[in-house]
Amino acid sequence: MKGKFITFEGIDGCGKTTQIKLLKEYLFKKGYNILVLREPGGTKVGEKIRDILLDKDNFIFPMTEMLLYASSRAQLVSEKIIPALQKGKIVIADRFVDSSYVYQGYARELGIETVKVVNEIATIGILPDITIYIDITPEEAMKRRGKREADRLEKESMEFHEKVREGYVKLIKQHPERFVIIDGMQEISKVHQCIITVIKKYL
Amino acid sequence: MKGKFITFEGIDGCGKTTQIKLLKEYLFKKGYNILVLREPGGTKVGEKIRDILLDKDNFIFPMTEMLLYASSRAQLVSEKIIPALQKGKIVIADRFVDSSYVYQGYARELGIETVKVVNEIATIGILPDITIYIDITPEEAMKRRGKREADRLEKESMEFHEKVREGYVKLIKQHPERFVIIDGMQEISKVHQCIITVIKKYL
Repeated sequence: MKGKFITFEGIDGCGKTTQIKLLKEYLFKKGYNILVLREPGGTKVGEKIRDILLDKDNFIFPMTEMLLYASSRAQLVSEKIIPALQKGKIVIADRFVDSSYVYQGYARELGIETVKVVNEIATIGILPDITIYIDITPEEAMKRRGKREADRLEKESMEFHEKVREGYVKLIKQHPERFVIIDGMQEISKVHQCIITVIKKYL
Repeated sequence: MKGKFITFEGIDGCGKTTQIKLLKEYLFKKGYNILVLREPGGTKVGEKIRDILLDKDNFIFPMTEMLLYASSRAQLVSEKIIPALQKGKIVIADRFVDSSYVYQGYARELGIETVKVVNEIATIGILPDITIYIDITPEEAMKRRGKREADRLEKESMEFHEKVREGYVKLIKQHPERFVIIDGMQEISKVHQCIITVIKKYL
């Protein structure tokens, strides 16, 4: 397909949303046609699935959680990602399959293989051209979230977020060709500069 | 597990709900401990997924649909079915995996194999001890639904329901050990008698 597919990964609070906004502005000024999406959600049906996933009153089994993410992702791929890539757009997604590998496969212990089988079906095999992993410590993430009320996933223990980070490290080792690690402990503008340096090489 | 797992299948309007109600009353009088469940739904989270699936304003891709059914099913298996079977209950479900094979795999052409892979993961391999398939023609089903407003799936064309029925016939041929075909064109009381005759042999 003509377009480029860029995904952002990292633990909650790592700065994905801020950095995606900055990257979008940068690419927009350069004249690129950009579509920014978020997961779960990004489509009408996906946002309804997101509401179920993030509602902290819901008791959701890990298997259900994994399949709900895959449902939202399937809709996003068919409704938004493929049509945009076919038109030559740059698609930037806040989380994609890697989040499921790490959160449900590794941290919730469903197993990477199980998550992989389901997600290869859900995404019809579509993978990002490049994945920006913003690395910060769970302690820093928690500090940044501050007093904002946490959703169902953010409410997880520090141990859980530590495990998620560990999962990312393992995953990156398996897919060095697609991942770029960015030090998220730096200032916002420095993180942005690092990301631009990387993206320039790919466009 | 100590309990028994009975599922009901058939096209919408075949009389599943009525027959499950009658069977439940019969078994209750005989002193059995029964749990009746419906799909999609049957759990708090599952009912929210059901709302998304049946809302006729939602545009849902076949892949998303299949994964949403699998999510609801995963929750139902872990939250309700396994605990009830472990306690020795008779679990009666209005639809289960077979509906996904036939509706999404066959009628929506996702392929039985794709649906199977996802559902074996979602259900942790749990299968019904016996599946009652109530067979009626799509014409009769439509007549019975009458003027009641149709949901997203009921709104499908006559052709679609014909294909679903065809799918059931194929599936039953593959799993003769688990399926029992009941002629749903008979009077309600006669259908009920046929079902009781079958169930008696299994309990």
